[in-house]
Amino acid sequence: MQSTAETDITDGLQSDTAERVAFLNRNSKIFHAVLAQQFDTNVISELCELSEMIRAISATRQGTQFLTTLLNYRRAMLYFTQPSTRTFLSFTAACQVLGLRYNTVRDPKTSSEVKGESEEDTVRVLSQYFDIIIMRHPKAGFAEHVARILEHMPRTIPVINGGSGKDQHPTQALLDVYTLFRCFTTPTSVRGSRRYHCNPFVGKTIAFVGDLKRGRTVRSLTYLLARYPGVKLVYISPPELAPEEDIVEYMRRSDVEFEMADDLQKWVGECDAIYMTRLQDEHDVAGESKKIDYSRYSLTLDMAPQFKPNLVIMHPLPRRGELDEKLDSLPQAKYWAQVRNGMWMRAALIALIFEVDGAILEHYQNYYTL
Amino acid sequence: MQSTAETDITDGLQSDTAERVAFLNRNSKIFHAVLAQQFDTNVISELCELSEMIRAISATRQGTQFLTTLLNYRRAMLYFTQPSTRTFLSFTAACQVLGLRYNTVRDPKTSSEVKGESEEDTVRVLSQYFDIIIMRHPKAGFAEHVARILEHMPRTIPVINGGSGKDQHPTQALLDVYTLFRCFTTPTSVRGSRRYHCNPFVGKTIAFVGDLKRGRTVRSLTYLLARYPGVKLVYISPPELAPEEDIVEYMRRSDVEFEMADDLQKWVGECDAIYMTRLQDEHDVAGESKKIDYSRYSLTLDMAPQFKPNLVIMHPLPRRGELDEKLDSLPQAKYWAQVRNGMWMRAALIALIFEVDGAILEHYQNYYTL
Amino acid sequence: MQSTAETDITDGLQSDTAERVAFLNRNSKIFHAVLAQQFDTNVISELCELSEMIRAISATRQGTQFLTTLLNYRRAMLYFTQPSTRTFLSFTAACQVLGLRYNTVRDPKTSSEVKGESEEDTVRVLSQYFDIIIMRHPKAGFAEHVARILEHMPRTIPVINGGSGKDQHPTQALLDVYTLFRCFTTPTSVRGSRRYHCNPFVGKTIAFVGDLKRGRTVRSLTYLLARYPGVKLVYISPPELAPEEDIVEYMRRSDVEFEMADDLQKWVGECDAIYMTRLQDEHDVAGESKKIDYSRYSLTLDMAPQFKPNLVIMHPLPRRGELDEKLDSLPQAKYWAQVRNGMWMRAALIALIFEVDGAILEHYQNYYTL
Repeated sequence: MQSTAETDITDGLQSDTAERVAFLNRNSKIFHAVLAQQFDTNVISELCELSEMIRAISATRQGTQFLTTLLNYRRAMLYFTQPSTRTFLSFTAACQVLGLRYNTVRDPKTSSEVKGESEEDTVRVLSQYFDIIIMRHPKAGFAEHVARILEHMPRTIPVINGGSGKDQHPTQALLDVYTLFRCFTTPTSVRGSRRYHCNPFVGKTIAFVGDLKRGRTVRSLTYLLARYPGVKLVYISPPELAPEEDIVEYMRRSDVEFEMADDLQKWVGECDAIYMTRLQDEHDVAGESKKIDYSRYSLTLDMAPQFKPNLVIMHPLPRRGELDEKLDSLPQAKYWAQVRNGMWMRAALIALIFEVDGAILEHYQNYYTL
Repeated sequence: MQSTAETDITDGLQSDTAERVAFLNRNSKIFHAVLAQQFDTNVISELCELSEMIRAISATRQGTQFLTTLLNYRRAMLYFTQPSTRTFLSFTAACQVLGLRYNTVRDPKTSSEVKGESEEDTVRVLSQYFDIIIMRHPKAGFAEHVARILEHMPRTIPVINGGSGKDQHPTQALLDVYTLFRCFTTPTSVRGSRRYHCNPFVGKTIAFVGDLKRGRTVRSLTYLLARYPGVKLVYISPPELAPEEDIVEYMRRSDVEFEMADDLQKWVGECDAIYMTRLQDEHDVAGESKKIDYSRYSLTLDMAPQFKPNLVIMHPLPRRGELDEKLDSLPQAKYWAQVRNGMWMRAALIALIFEVDGAILEHYQNYYTL
Repeated sequence: MQSTAETDITDGLQSDTAERVAFLNRNSKIFHAVLAQQFDTNVISELCELSEMIRAISATRQGTQFLTTLLNYRRAMLYFTQPSTRTFLSFTAACQVLGLRYNTVRDPKTSSEVKGESEEDTVRVLSQYFDIIIMRHPKAGFAEHVARILEHMPRTIPVINGGSGKDQHPTQALLDVYTLFRCFTTPTSVRGSRRYHCNPFVGKTIAFVGDLKRGRTVRSLTYLLARYPGVKLVYISPPELAPEEDIVEYMRRSDVEFEMADDLQKWVGECDAIYMTRLQDEHDVAGESKKIDYSRYSLTLDMAPQFKPNLVIMHPLPRRGELDEKLDSLPQAKYWAQVRNGMWMRAALIALIFEVDGAILEHYQNYYTL
């Protein structure tokens, strides 16, 4: 595990990462799911395997009905005060897969905040009605802050971070790794769920392209991939949008090879996976990204002849012009599958937190060959 | 079937109706439900019969619980970006009747569109999480456009049109026909569900009153009623708000008698059904409807002595002044029943699309006399 | 019962309270739940007992699953057009506890009101889709108005008042009484549910503190507590925010002792319960409450040495500065428990209205010792 001494990147939370991870992972289990650093390769493998089993069980009506009985006695709060469609809906669908009932708070204007309540009090109240809080919030570090507040309540419930500021987005990173696992391994070569207990990244080149400075997706995914020796990561961005220093520093201390680059055209034929990202101009302070020629960080159909045949094209979506719609019909386009993988992975994470992973495994073993 | 050669009225979709209907009705089944022209008299009868069975089964707790097991392994997306209460809630209630779990997108401002995503991509993402998309949209033809987009995705899921621009509103037309069927036939004279396998419109006069130019309800209902020889349709409106040319043309080519009129007072005693509609002034370009004396197209209590005893008064709601609240207590007022019929009809349509109509029939035959 | 002749305080509803209560409590049962005056001590005891049983049954997975089968064949409409988080979520959680499916209307802007529909018609439509309407509304008396409108519809369904203007908030009052019952009795001394069939208020001093003029919570709770002879109520507020004349008049005619005061410091050591409330400055007409020194009506940690050891500190929340966060860790702080009690009490009320209280009692007796 590398997750010990790196500089804390989260605003206002000065505690050291090892302490933070220990707090979030109680008794070596995932209790809260807030930081990408919490997930070591064993847990990642377990979550990928669980995702795969949930997906397989869902393929039949009887299996789907089994899954919906697993958590039908629990209630989730989706507290999403930062705009989001796909992450929000992915979580709601994941809850439904497991029969977990949920309610939502999305627009702070309809909430008690108009009456002058602190957001901390709002969360304390929520913890009295619900068994888990899944949250997306504009403030970096807020999910962890909430996890610490709940520590002092009569009922302590788990918190899942569905994205916080430009800081972290750990469930996106998990679904991305799951997508890469699925694409880099095959069901036949690595039978059944054992497929996920290996390092399929050895010798693979994975490029991140675009606004790497402000995309939290890339930060969280870096933390996960850096755990797999033998992978090579390439960060391709305009110089102004290169990854922040903490990520560079983190990579330096890791066991994996990495490279900073600014020319997509040069790298496109080398990659086993290309992870496209959009310009995050909503974080612009003074329109600074208008000066950047982002077209150089776009993937287009005319590059297709250079693609490796098994290239994996990914994108966390939403996309703009940087990922040409004409690529959608190529076999290398995996971004729609990536969306659906997110639903399975989020269901797996919730199942792990509520400790129904054993029930899923048992059902799977009874009905499917491993 | 008349649905072959009429002019395409949908903006931007130039394909011929026969091709469109064939695309939507795959293998002679309703796959997507987008256009009123898709529904022939056999399907209409089947849907009315199914609505009636669902209603009857719902009358007991045990029956209701049976129904909620039918689709509890599926998930629906209600994508309603045009304001709507009743159609939206009618669909949510219909989903709940069948145990179909759902999620909603209502306010595009909370969606990824703020990050510059195309609405097509939003729908592509939704198709990865859900098993059906039920949509209401301000743009005419959008539901069909979505159905065609999904054709190219790894997972193709059905689309139901819950109203698109001033174009079509097919589920409203279906519930309207169901309401007319229920009122024009009696359970005793036509036993059980066979009640819906006849043409109860022979010799009936049905008037549409009000803003017939811009009300999509009337357009969709016209398509359905024109399939029943022997009915007489009367379009009563201010000359400025008469039905658009495509509807007039369509009626001319149909087998049914119809008339254009502008004097409600003259017709009120002749009608077996009067379908009131409100002024659609939200479609005004320059306040043109302010000049119209709409009070001449209002139904009031002082007209009641002229009503036929079995007159059916309908209104798609919401109403304004054109349908006097004082009429609410008359036995001829069927508009609240019409609302409730909508819930059953929408449940029937969803059941047909997911092919659980057979299970409903079987349950019905086991528990109820046909 | 004292609920016979008091002045009607609700704007625009001039009928006498006895008639109103008779209308709402049909055949001596709670049909609609709109006014605090509807609940006599027998019903209060029954609801507290039912809350306690639901809470106990919910402690196991098997019990929770039993509860969710009770009302899974019904549908609720939560019509909350006044901003609210906690009451809204408390009701949704209560519905989920009982398996009651629900839909919501929260933002009138997405509703048909933009098309000019009256709110009465909106409610009439809702009554066609749902089996109960739970509402919060800015207008005093609106819930009762709706109950009376529905009287004239083909389907009459119950209405629960989740708060109306500055008038009443009966479910808050019920959960407050339940909280007091729980704190003033002990499970061991009064075995099982019989615990709630007594008057635990004899000799107790309960203080209301803060903006007592405009807080509907205090009005509703006063109606309930005035039914318990032997309690002493103290109303502590700035003179400008003293309770309105109708409450004073009501207390005068009741059997219980009460006092008006303005000095919290003087009373703090005398009280068995202190019910804090925030300044309701959203009801200010011209910023009048800015002149008030509300800090004198705040509970702070430096008062703690004066607290009785079994003092019950309550607050309907949201709080501002009047209830110091530093008090949260004291054993006397009961406001988070109060929040959770609200969920159980609301579930109990819904269960009583739908007459599944018998099924709950039977299950409880089978599985738990009384």
